[in-house]
Amino acid sequence: MRERPAVPMKSAVRRTTLAVDVVVLSPRAEALAVLLVRAPAGARERWTLPWDAPQADEGLEDAAARIAEAVLGEAPAFFEQVGAFSDAKRHPGDADVSIGIVALVPAGVEASSPDSGWFPLDGLPPLAPRHRAVVERAAAVARQRVDQSPLAFRLLPPTFTLTDLQSVYELLLGRRLHKASFRRALQASYLVEPTDEWRSEGRGRPAQLFRFAPRKRRGARRGVRFDLFTE
Amino acid sequence: MRERPAVPMKSAVRRTTLAVDVVVLSPRAEALAVLLVRAPAGARERWTLPWDAPQADEGLEDAAARIAEAVLGEAPAFFEQVGAFSDAKRHPGDADVSIGIVALVPAGVEASSPDSGWFPLDGLPPLAPRHRAVVERAAAVARQRVDQSPLAFRLLPPTFTLTDLQSVYELLLGRRLHKASFRRALQASYLVEPTDEWRSEGRGRPAQLFRFAPRKRRGARRGVRFDLFTE
Repeated sequence: MRERPAVPMKSAVRRTTLAVDVVVLSPRAEALAVLLVRAPAGARERWTLPWDAPQADEGLEDAAARIAEAVLGEAPAFFEQVGAFSDAKRHPGDADVSIGIVALVPAGVEASSPDSGWFPLDGLPPLAPRHRAVVERAAAVARQRVDQSPLAFRLLPPTFTLTDLQSVYELLLGRRLHKASFRRALQASYLVEPTDEWRSEGRGRPAQLFRFAPRKRRGARRGVRFDLFTE
Repeated sequence: MRERPAVPMKSAVRRTTLAVDVVVLSPRAEALAVLLVRAPAGARERWTLPWDAPQADEGLEDAAARIAEAVLGEAPAFFEQVGAFSDAKRHPGDADVSIGIVALVPAGVEASSPDSGWFPLDGLPPLAPRHRAVVERAAAVARQRVDQSPLAFRLLPPTFTLTDLQSVYELLLGRRLHKASFRRALQASYLVEPTDEWRSEGRGRPAQLFRFAPRKRRGARRGVRFDLFTE
């Protein structure tokens, strides 16, 4: 009756070529920026995302850590898959399938590779179409998640001013936030705690430094947030 | 200086084997259930997720639609990737990499394949370890997303009672909701509208049927929801 079984035999798995494409995001000069590396001579575009194939028995996140470390000098603390891409779009290595992985790096971390550069998301050089799609998805995922997880703290050094924190949220959300409302919501969340350090910003009073220190709240089981559906 | 370039040449892409594993979720008998199919003779487990390799030039979601349709008789309206799995866990087809895709199907839709069955999430038969991991991730993704997108409506027929809707939310969230609070939040969200139909439930007054009809709200740009971080 059925034309094609829903569960094939083992021989049905297709041999394909796979790449891990890493989108390293970081706040740079008041923009959310992507780390790109210079392409090998003869490539169609001059810049690409850091990418490679996973090695035998290497997990996808492990591969992403290795690939990012080759450019940054150290592996970012945070990785998240943003999707598998299997379409006709050209990949610089002609991989059939790309696993896109986003990594977040705090402001101030510099790349160790001289053949790399940070480019603002809205001012990227030409990229292979698959890489362009991976970058767009990565930025979209980071923006969607900013509300539901403490992603913003991954983009900051261990201690930061509340102005630094607000700036990172504004970069991720792509719009300005009202300062008093932001601080009120932050205070209610018990996500940060003050340190004993202060930083002089050159003018006005020095600003106190804070650290990420979420406190467990009792009875925090939320209901259904229908208000999030229709933005 | 660098030991391994961050951008390899084309020859570096690894040949690998790829499978699309589909987790079809649906409310069945007051549980969230997964659609499984009987494994071919000689397989180590008797049941598996519907899976197959993507065909040449077939997108991953297209492959998922084809695979689900082979069991259900029609393609589900909703698909979402839940992750790429590349680990040492055994896949029934020995695929190196699985792309896990979740599909949501309304209550009442029956599978057309006789070699299939719905199993409650907390009462699954033995599955290959990779498939077990894909199911767990799919359920987690559905539960995370229920607050941020109208997923619940994908699990309902086009018209439904508010009790039906609340039940689906309770299945997805894995806990009871307070009826009056649920209806108040729903009303404030302008997500559903009443129809002219009513359904008799056997006892008491008939219940009015509603449909999903989100109304655009002005000024719905939300701030930062820190309260979602620490559940």
